[in-house]
Amino acid sequence: MVAPFELHRQQIELILIAWGMPQAHAERTAEVLSWADLHGVESHGISMLVEYDMRFRDGRLKMDADFKVMRESPVSVLIDGDGGMGHVAYAMAAEAAISKAKSAGIAVAAVRNSSHFGAVGYFTNLAARAGLIGMGATSAAGIRVAPTGGAEAKLGTDPWSFAAPSMDDNPFLLDMATTTVAYGKIRNKMNEGLPMPVGWGSDNAGRASTEPLDVTRRGGFMSPLGGTPEGSSYKGYGLSMMVNILSSCLSGATLITDPMHTKKPQGFDIGHFYLAIDPRLFRDDGAFESDVATFCNALRATKRVESEVPVMVAGDPQWAMAEQRMREGIPIGKGLRAKLIQVAEAAKVEWLLDKNESTSSETKPPQFDASSTAATY
Amino acid sequence: MVAPFELHRQQIELILIAWGMPQAHAERTAEVLSWADLHGVESHGISMLVEYDMRFRDGRLKMDADFKVMRESPVSVLIDGDGGMGHVAYAMAAEAAISKAKSAGIAVAAVRNSSHFGAVGYFTNLAARAGLIGMGATSAAGIRVAPTGGAEAKLGTDPWSFAAPSMDDNPFLLDMATTTVAYGKIRNKMNEGLPMPVGWGSDNAGRASTEPLDVTRRGGFMSPLGGTPEGSSYKGYGLSMMVNILSSCLSGATLITDPMHTKKPQGFDIGHFYLAIDPRLFRDDGAFESDVATFCNALRATKRVESEVPVMVAGDPQWAMAEQRMREGIPIGKGLRAKLIQVAEAAKVEWLLDKNESTSSETKPPQFDASSTAATY
Repeated sequence: MVAPFELHRQQIELILIAWGMPQAHAERTAEVLSWADLHGVESHGISMLVEYDMRFRDGRLKMDADFKVMRESPVSVLIDGDGGMGHVAYAMAAEAAISKAKSAGIAVAAVRNSSHFGAVGYFTNLAARAGLIGMGATSAAGIRVAPTGGAEAKLGTDPWSFAAPSMDDNPFLLDMATTTVAYGKIRNKMNEGLPMPVGWGSDNAGRASTEPLDVTRRGGFMSPLGGTPEGSSYKGYGLSMMVNILSSCLSGATLITDPMHTKKPQGFDIGHFYLAIDPRLFRDDGAFESDVATFCNALRATKRVESEVPVMVAGDPQWAMAEQRMREGIPIGKGLRAKLIQVAEAAKVEWLLDKNESTSSETKPPQFDASSTAATY
Repeated sequence: MVAPFELHRQQIELILIAWGMPQAHAERTAEVLSWADLHGVESHGISMLVEYDMRFRDGRLKMDADFKVMRESPVSVLIDGDGGMGHVAYAMAAEAAISKAKSAGIAVAAVRNSSHFGAVGYFTNLAARAGLIGMGATSAAGIRVAPTGGAEAKLGTDPWSFAAPSMDDNPFLLDMATTTVAYGKIRNKMNEGLPMPVGWGSDNAGRASTEPLDVTRRGGFMSPLGGTPEGSSYKGYGLSMMVNILSSCLSGATLITDPMHTKKPQGFDIGHFYLAIDPRLFRDDGAFESDVATFCNALRATKRVESEVPVMVAGDPQWAMAEQRMREGIPIGKGLRAKLIQVAEAAKVEWLLDKNESTSSETKPPQFDASSTAATY
């Protein structure tokens, strides 16, 4: 089935309100999740409701969380997420940093005592749309990645995002896990019975493996970006540590290496980081945005390896996907649909997403697979 | 031969002064270069004098450059490097950002109209030693890297560095090219007649190659971190663009994709970026440093793939190397020694580095190859 963006957003909002989230928070959280699906980042969209539902039933996500500013200066804000969902807490942090950077030129925000907030690209995009450079990162709940030379999982997928405003329609928007690939890609190879490329993961002795089951079922690990020691996986590993230092050490959230990580009674206590810089600190109005556009277009004009495959810059696949899905709707697979109907039924809310089935069945399946070409978070 | 650190530094200083650099600038530049060799980053140490000598003779490095502050605010500074060497200009930027961050909590610096500044880790280390988080980046002179999906060089090795103070002796210090490996590693494989691992480079059609000659002699390209499309090279490519956006678009330096890149009469006009954050914006005194130490030590304690190969964190190989070389001296290979003697003779300065040959010949060759395990810049 295919859901129009607005109905997709409403469905999420209804469920969150039924779980006890205040209206304004539910609206924002739904917007963050629907934005992800609209832009092709399906790992961080409506599919997360299934996970959130489990955590909510376990009493591990507070729906009436009271986000509090713990410290503040003209260039910084520290927010306590009160064990709630991270979307609204991180949006508060991003918006405060953006507002402060517009006054002071630069600002930094940290969030602690929080949980999953969706796709970090949604938030750094806010800075770029406001004419600022945005950087974002978060620590992770899942421990799945072995450091270079290690045979034990110590890190998460630990995403980093960077956005910069452009004179063209859309900003430069990089949003990447610091692992080689997202866990879902390894699971997909397993489901298809295919080997995975060298560099995606290792067996439980920490040795590079091409067998997806080694990672998914046999105690192996995901690999940091670079994949193997000879592919310089210490760089992905180093970036993953940078993400944790900025997200957890700076905010005071529980370290992913702490035995109490995600085990605290008050919630997950993961941490987030956000930074905004006004390019007008250095450049005349519009000069930075003009250079970013020129730079991106120069990269897009690179001679191609395959004549029919364009050279893109970070964000391009997502903008193309969003345009298509805003027009044609957001596809939801059969398996996910069945799970979401269960979530809606358990929350006692109406299932809205089959309403457009008659029109949506006429739409073609998406031609453009953002996940295979760019950000997979 | 093996040179004691202080003599090594003096030799560089002598040559720079002979080239016409003011004493204070020569001292600082020599410190930056000797620091790199001391820490095992030989690609960015005294060996650079050979390259600088050529550029200086070509009239492309101004020795009496007058670094000017072009814009300034309580949280930012923009420096014009006046076509000089980058070391002192970038040190000025770093020190201004550190000083401002100590007052305001965070500060950002940009340098334009500059050139090579040595190892970026030297500069982010300054922030960490001052109790601050440091981030640094620079655009590159050489165009050697093809973007993902491209069959044309458009980018450089585009380094990124991140440093964080720790309660232990040494900070966390990540300093990495955003390519899979440094160019020197590909050249070494060529010299040894060995194939290179998949993901280091591609042929001139942009296809992954294991033949080093494809990159060094036949018009091929270096690969962004990730190495291949299936290894997520778009991530290394995206980080490389981030580095250029921060270094060139923000400072107003010439874009690496501009036809005038490095061709301007006034000098190279590459750009640098620096950021400093005081963790006391968010944490009580010492709490951040304590968490960084705990986090690093938890990673070091990871179960090992090879029992005799420790799991390290970024910076560890360099600190170990610096300790050894401060004790035993800095090795300089025969080929490099011969070239440096030519540089010294052309500059009409004394060759100091054989003075300790009698003692240094007793020292063992270095046991620890930092370049194979960590930052290779």
